[in-house]
Amino acid sequence: MSQQGLVILKLGGSVITLKEKPFTANEEAIRRLAGEIASSGVRDLVIVHGGGSFGHPLAQEYDIHKGFKEERQLRGLAETHLAMEELNKLVVEALLAEGLPAIPLPPVSCFLMEAGRIRSAFLDPLKAVLSLKAIPVLYGDVALDAERGFTILSGDQIVAHLALGLKAARVVLGVDVDGVFDKDPHEHPDAVLLEHLRPGDLKAVKAGGSRTTDVTGGMRRKLEEMLPVVQAGVPVFITNAGVAGNILRALRGEKTRGTLITP
Amino acid sequence: MSQQGLVILKLGGSVITLKEKPFTANEEAIRRLAGEIASSGVRDLVIVHGGGSFGHPLAQEYDIHKGFKEERQLRGLAETHLAMEELNKLVVEALLAEGLPAIPLPPVSCFLMEAGRIRSAFLDPLKAVLSLKAIPVLYGDVALDAERGFTILSGDQIVAHLALGLKAARVVLGVDVDGVFDKDPHEHPDAVLLEHLRPGDLKAVKAGGSRTTDVTGGMRRKLEEMLPVVQAGVPVFITNAGVAGNILRALRGEKTRGTLITP
Repeated sequence: MSQQGLVILKLGGSVITLKEKPFTANEEAIRRLAGEIASSGVRDLVIVHGGGSFGHPLAQEYDIHKGFKEERQLRGLAETHLAMEELNKLVVEALLAEGLPAIPLPPVSCFLMEAGRIRSAFLDPLKAVLSLKAIPVLYGDVALDAERGFTILSGDQIVAHLALGLKAARVVLGVDVDGVFDKDPHEHPDAVLLEHLRPGDLKAVKAGGSRTTDVTGGMRRKLEEMLPVVQAGVPVFITNAGVAGNILRALRGEKTRGTLITP
Repeated sequence: MSQQGLVILKLGGSVITLKEKPFTANEEAIRRLAGEIASSGVRDLVIVHGGGSFGHPLAQEYDIHKGFKEERQLRGLAETHLAMEELNKLVVEALLAEGLPAIPLPPVSCFLMEAGRIRSAFLDPLKAVLSLKAIPVLYGDVALDAERGFTILSGDQIVAHLALGLKAARVVLGVDVDGVFDKDPHEHPDAVLLEHLRPGDLKAVKAGGSRTTDVTGGMRRKLEEMLPVVQAGVPVFITNAGVAGNILRALRGEKTRGTLITP
């Protein structure tokens, strides 16, 4: 894994919030991760974080992912975004406290979707932040959708879009499991971590016919998002951001527990 | 003044915050103004608000308007934006409480500046919000600048850009004085409100050689921003948003105390 070039780092919503407590951040995890990012020395960096218990409850209550059905959802659009701003503020402040020049870039006003996928993005401000040697911080957000009215723009979709659009050197995905397993590790104690995957493995996952990987839900969608990234030649490393030291080592390009996906 | 078509409404920062108290909103004024906007019945609307005591102290402390000079300013860039998000949240929540479908669109990620002026803007999300019959809410913000690194993007510059770009029917500027006076009303108790101005008057103000208007500071810059708007055929009405009823009547197109500038 190269230590040069732009790194896109995702901090999973389930790591930086308390999953079971709506609108509650895991402030200890946020502080620790900010410290690991600072210690890594990686400065050519974009950070994207998820929504966890800030984004999901409201997005679900108002069926944001289903697109516009009725006027009351519009209130949910605003409320979901405001909740995400609140979480983003905690992340940015933790980064600033570590001396990192983090600049929040709210996705709601710079992405336009079509049928749930990014149709266009205004990346000039983000590129300007990078050229100031500062760190843009984006997040999963609500977004306007030319076909459906609005939708949810996941942090993972942003990561993939930026990795491709900015020709990132590598992607690090910090999640709440150790990586990709051959079986669901929550249900199967004997599940084995797959330390190395290739695009072919991701395609098999996508097709649902994988014999080696039996991934479900969040991890399946994550791998689907990452397939074009890996195919474009950008290595993706998935590791447990809930375990101290993983993000530090992953950013440094050092070996740590996780799944590496290479072209 | 037409009651049809898009209206761009500016709520001055000095009206919605307490000027002398850093980071303190005038919540009573915000609530009242949200009520007046709701009562006006105007729905084809974009709202832009200023920063007042939320935006100015940090922007000044870090010399954001001077552009990039040293790394410590980057922290100020983030902190100023986060403070503006906080004020914006209060405005949006007040609008939602009145049943208005307000959607915040943070300017930092959808405008790129050059030498302090808007170079490009990504207005697709804003147009999508309007086509949902919802109300985009923008605000004066920090912005990236291709020449200077970063700068302050005033709410007034956003208003002018949107009025021209969206071919607005009219602009209503809510400020903390009754309108444009022949002399500075703060210093001259005999100052006379100018109820009607033409582009020629604004040009004279800009050139500094006006015999009828002796405007200073904020009002001068405001009129300079509005000159191309009026020249493009969009009437601009300036009224005191601190006085109950002015914004209600102005939005309805009814007569109220203020200065009307017509082509």
